[in-house]
Amino acid sequence: MTTILTARAAARISTSRAGTPRASRPVRTVRVALAGCGTVGASLVALIRQQQEFFEQRHGVRFELVRILVRDTAKERAVALPRHLLTSNADDFLLTDAEVVVEAIGGLDPAERLVRGALAQGRHVVTANKELLAAHGPALQRLADKRGATLNFEAAVGGGVPVVRTLRGELGGHGVRTITGILNGTCNYLLTQLADGVRFSDALADAQAKGFAEADPSRDLQGLDAADKIAILSWLAWGVDPAEVQVDVEPLPADPEPLARQAQARNGVLKYLAGAVRGEHGTVRAWVRPVIVPRDHELARVRDEENAVHIDSDSLGLLRLQGRGAGGSATASAVLGDLLAAVK
Amino acid sequence: MTTILTARAAARISTSRAGTPRASRPVRTVRVALAGCGTVGASLVALIRQQQEFFEQRHGVRFELVRILVRDTAKERAVALPRHLLTSNADDFLLTDAEVVVEAIGGLDPAERLVRGALAQGRHVVTANKELLAAHGPALQRLADKRGATLNFEAAVGGGVPVVRTLRGELGGHGVRTITGILNGTCNYLLTQLADGVRFSDALADAQAKGFAEADPSRDLQGLDAADKIAILSWLAWGVDPAEVQVDVEPLPADPEPLARQAQARNGVLKYLAGAVRGEHGTVRAWVRPVIVPRDHELARVRDEENAVHIDSDSLGLLRLQGRGAGGSATASAVLGDLLAAVK
Repeated sequence: MTTILTARAAARISTSRAGTPRASRPVRTVRVALAGCGTVGASLVALIRQQQEFFEQRHGVRFELVRILVRDTAKERAVALPRHLLTSNADDFLLTDAEVVVEAIGGLDPAERLVRGALAQGRHVVTANKELLAAHGPALQRLADKRGATLNFEAAVGGGVPVVRTLRGELGGHGVRTITGILNGTCNYLLTQLADGVRFSDALADAQAKGFAEADPSRDLQGLDAADKIAILSWLAWGVDPAEVQVDVEPLPADPEPLARQAQARNGVLKYLAGAVRGEHGTVRAWVRPVIVPRDHELARVRDEENAVHIDSDSLGLLRLQGRGAGGSATASAVLGDLLAAVK
Repeated sequence: MTTILTARAAARISTSRAGTPRASRPVRTVRVALAGCGTVGASLVALIRQQQEFFEQRHGVRFELVRILVRDTAKERAVALPRHLLTSNADDFLLTDAEVVVEAIGGLDPAERLVRGALAQGRHVVTANKELLAAHGPALQRLADKRGATLNFEAAVGGGVPVVRTLRGELGGHGVRTITGILNGTCNYLLTQLADGVRFSDALADAQAKGFAEADPSRDLQGLDAADKIAILSWLAWGVDPAEVQVDVEPLPADPEPLARQAQARNGVLKYLAGAVRGEHGTVRAWVRPVIVPRDHELARVRDEENAVHIDSDSLGLLRLQGRGAGGSATASAVLGDLLAAVK
């Protein structure tokens, strides 16, 4: 077998260079207010600083942090934050002239108040908050539409896996039949460790140290996190209110080791899966449960903190998306993509 | 194991209904001009008609076809087209007041003239034309930016797999290291058939009958189609000019059966892969070649007309996208997503 060049490639000028200087373009400064500076918020600040030059060159946009809401303004942090940008007062925070507000606090309160407040002022909002969207997504979206603002939330489901964008875009109107996936990176990390012979308690401590398990992982282990996510995907796929989607949830056993061993004995792997299916007359049924997956099934190969989503639709057949689902940098990367999409 | 309900789910009103009537919203009519009514164009027309009601309800948008450019206005077609919309004259076609122009002709001429003309008039353009983008993508994008128009081309690479959107969005600025994938659905279909014991000539006839191999499949079999696609992905990932990306292309053998048998003897599968890698000093190297992939590798499991793209990046690690890559409905679905994104 010999390697040849296409006629066009052969005519090209040697190896191209990504660093080629290009005509300088006007750079627009976008003022960003950030609520929350934990794992995701701090990763976002670091990523914005690191990618600044690239965004200017490629997209003609410079993100400027103008306000940061934190619980404790005196706390030492992994990233250096200019003191004068910090506030611990949510009302103060909303007195901003930012074009985009990033909500990275999580939970319902004060996140809901902040997001509503920002949208009501016509500001774009980017959030990774699955609880908020599962509870109030459609109302927030209507508010955004009314004010001409954008509400982006790619990082709320699947971390760095572009499932939200996909369902909001081309697949939203195309007869999605089923959604199945691994939506909780923490549980998948723990179950991968178990399959590799690590004790559950050691695996949990490890996941917490790596920053993709919360100090209190009960929302993950009880399936509430995955339930919120599959409800959000059901909203995007079928237009149902996620707060009204009935999700049958079976938590992981308090000690999943016996079930994991049972899976191995059956030549399978224990996975914590979520799914939703369109039924008759526009009904939607969703579920979250531990499943023994055959070892050669594709979902059995989703390891560590990865997420995977399989979407089966009338026009596209089976679409599979798989990638890093948890951790600050994957989530921050998705948030940054949303930021960019909001202002382009 | 018992199935329980989350507290929130239990409080929800029985099973939700996708068909719930919602407050009627104002519907905006978007005028669309379509150039080309072959496999993709006809599928798009059918899809727009089929999804009309959904788009009105969900997105508040109604697509109205106002002009269709065809080679032969008298030809009988799979979809019924109102006679008065048809024209076979490209200049006539551009005398349109459409908000969006869909280019589904393929090739460089007259596609380039149409796309340039439409963008120069400030109209949004949606195209699935990889040849055009590989040759003139950056220039067309600059023209679009200058005129405040959108240039969308999800269907140009990966069919229904959302790889363009992903690289243009969050991954565009995040240190993509390598891209590897199966980018030509026709070749993958043929090689899957070979692996299943079908003769090459029979497989080719079958693919043509199913509409995802061209009457002249030489661009597919010689790797030129995949070369254009990997050049486009290199542009999106690294900002290089796709026309200057050097792609080392090795065509499929004229008769790939001996190589496919050799692969099987080695417990592998013959696949036609494309890839690109970021080198030192901003260089990019790209390639297209037949590869014997171990049977348990993920790319070995990509069957029939599917495409798969694996993107390895600094912040996201390995992202895997896989789905239907060829065929009218997958491509038309991606075009429709682009249409929607352009006008929302």
